[in-house]
Amino acid sequence: MKIGILGGGQLGFMTILRGTYMGFEFNVLDKSFDVSSRKTSAKLFTFENYSEFYNESDIITFEFEHIPTYIAEFMKEKLRPSLEILLLKQNRFNEKQFLLNNKFPVPKFFRAENGKLAYEIIKKNNFIPCVVKITRLGYDGKGQFYIRSFENLEEIYNLNEELIIEEYIDFEMEVSTIVARNELDIKVYPISQNFHKDGILIYNITPAKISKKLENKIYEIAIELSKCLKLIGIVTIEFFVKDNEVLINEIAPRPHNSGHWTLDGSITSQFEQFLRSILNLPLGETTLIKPTLMINLLGVDKPNLNEIFKIKNSYFYWYFKEKKTRRKMGHINVLLDNYDDFKVIVKSILNN
Amino acid sequence: MKIGILGGGQLGFMTILRGTYMGFEFNVLDKSFDVSSRKTSAKLFTFENYSEFYNESDIITFEFEHIPTYIAEFMKEKLRPSLEILLLKQNRFNEKQFLLNNKFPVPKFFRAENGKLAYEIIKKNNFIPCVVKITRLGYDGKGQFYIRSFENLEEIYNLNEELIIEEYIDFEMEVSTIVARNELDIKVYPISQNFHKDGILIYNITPAKISKKLENKIYEIAIELSKCLKLIGIVTIEFFVKDNEVLINEIAPRPHNSGHWTLDGSITSQFEQFLRSILNLPLGETTLIKPTLMINLLGVDKPNLNEIFKIKNSYFYWYFKEKKTRRKMGHINVLLDNYDDFKVIVKSILNN
Repeated sequence: MKIGILGGGQLGFMTILRGTYMGFEFNVLDKSFDVSSRKTSAKLFTFENYSEFYNESDIITFEFEHIPTYIAEFMKEKLRPSLEILLLKQNRFNEKQFLLNNKFPVPKFFRAENGKLAYEIIKKNNFIPCVVKITRLGYDGKGQFYIRSFENLEEIYNLNEELIIEEYIDFEMEVSTIVARNELDIKVYPISQNFHKDGILIYNITPAKISKKLENKIYEIAIELSKCLKLIGIVTIEFFVKDNEVLINEIAPRPHNSGHWTLDGSITSQFEQFLRSILNLPLGETTLIKPTLMINLLGVDKPNLNEIFKIKNSYFYWYFKEKKTRRKMGHINVLLDNYDDFKVIVKSILNN
Repeated sequence: MKIGILGGGQLGFMTILRGTYMGFEFNVLDKSFDVSSRKTSAKLFTFENYSEFYNESDIITFEFEHIPTYIAEFMKEKLRPSLEILLLKQNRFNEKQFLLNNKFPVPKFFRAENGKLAYEIIKKNNFIPCVVKITRLGYDGKGQFYIRSFENLEEIYNLNEELIIEEYIDFEMEVSTIVARNELDIKVYPISQNFHKDGILIYNITPAKISKKLENKIYEIAIELSKCLKLIGIVTIEFFVKDNEVLINEIAPRPHNSGHWTLDGSITSQFEQFLRSILNLPLGETTLIKPTLMINLLGVDKPNLNEIFKIKNSYFYWYFKEKKTRRKMGHINVLLDNYDDFKVIVKSILNN
């Protein structure tokens, strides 16, 4: 069984390592060979050779949505999750509209053809504060503009691409879960509380401390959404929590940074679950072993493992990427004996 | 940091996969490229190129003891565990004699230059039943002769190599543990009960159901032995249990089949512990997550994962090896909700 993965970044890299333990073989398609997955036994293909990649793979999945659409479309017959789900994620407006059409709770939003029209919509509706995002290709806070007042509305005026204008939610908490589904099974992971800065995940802690009512609401949405998408795979769902209600911020139909804690903190990691789900195998339990902290290592050199492993029950992951400002270079998981220790540990690691 | 591994089998393969998550790079030395570790990003070397392997590795360890002695000796300066420990394992007599000299409990044994002399020693001492083993290169029951009576003593008469004659222990139970030690730390794993057939491990269950007294005795021996060896690394120790006492059957200074359960059943796997130990990093906790069953897949084709994953909390590992009779092809771990379920699960998997 040869599994093809569109994208060769750390999400694919960690999937391949787990899948190799399980006796699977992999092909990877990306724009260059300089990807994390070069540090696996996967066979690497560049975009020019997408049809060979297709022919040599029994099934195809993705760890990154923003691959050229003509390539995604070429993969259709072997693609899990489906092409429809992938395409939905290539455009933030379509994603939100899909959620709205299916009656999932989302913040208010508008679509605009370009910056000038967005400017006018915001003025006309007095829609401030709001967040303006390019509908394509943005991630980790790239292509996002937080509009606080009419003064910084000028920032977006000259943008010459499709935009989505989203209501700014002054949330109490950001949380997420992962749902896995295939023809046999559905499983939902415990809920994580995520801490972002400038649109990028800094750390998260699982389980999130939220009410039983909200927890059940989130599980219900996750299961319902997976059915609605006719999902064969996994989807991460990010929520804003406000006034004891939840709104979906975004979804990602693949392994996700907010699920890295599952490598050590859950009985089945998101990477193993991802593989089981797309292969229509019985899914693993998502039981939490202990409360788990995940901390991203952003734009740093490889840290001193001696310092890290002094923290009890800590685990270290490194993605073999060239250092760039704010780039996700690796992460640390810590299984906690006492939940509230997470604040001290975050401080000690991020200040080093 | 480039880590060199002598041996490219499944023990190295699983070590490399875990180490790759941690950002390490690997070199592997074996007699051919047709090894499990070919399915990793490790650079492979054959025996002819041992000095290049040495030069390109920052530290060197082993996953297999029976590499040519001149190669092992060449690695000395970079080798962890030490050359002394590796050489001890190249000869069963030296291993037993070391244990005896250091007052560890072992079955009675004799050394013989060849089969004829072994025959005479057994006759003279009326040492029947006993087990005769070649002192070099045997593993998984190869080169071992169970002498039940004077009649089948003829089997060994013509053996023309060094032998060890061991007292036959009519044990109640075979158990093992793993101890990790380096300059910073010592950690011992929970004790497993091992079920062998014809000298090969079929399955094991952790924890073994033994008395607290025996458990403490085993932990004490493990810690004492690791100190006595001045160990930088991990050692598996196999014991016979009889009459509420333990005798050491053998030791293995590397990851070991009886520790595969730790991949899912312990908070730190033996492979991660192995790497931390040889790199003098703080060791991980060895806490048991749930009682864990490990079943070897011997001489079979890759099984139907759909059947395997129907078993709750089951995990699958496959070593990419050519099928041969009794060869270790892969294994299955199962975390158990109820300890006694293991018997039913073993039956259902081994009869398939």
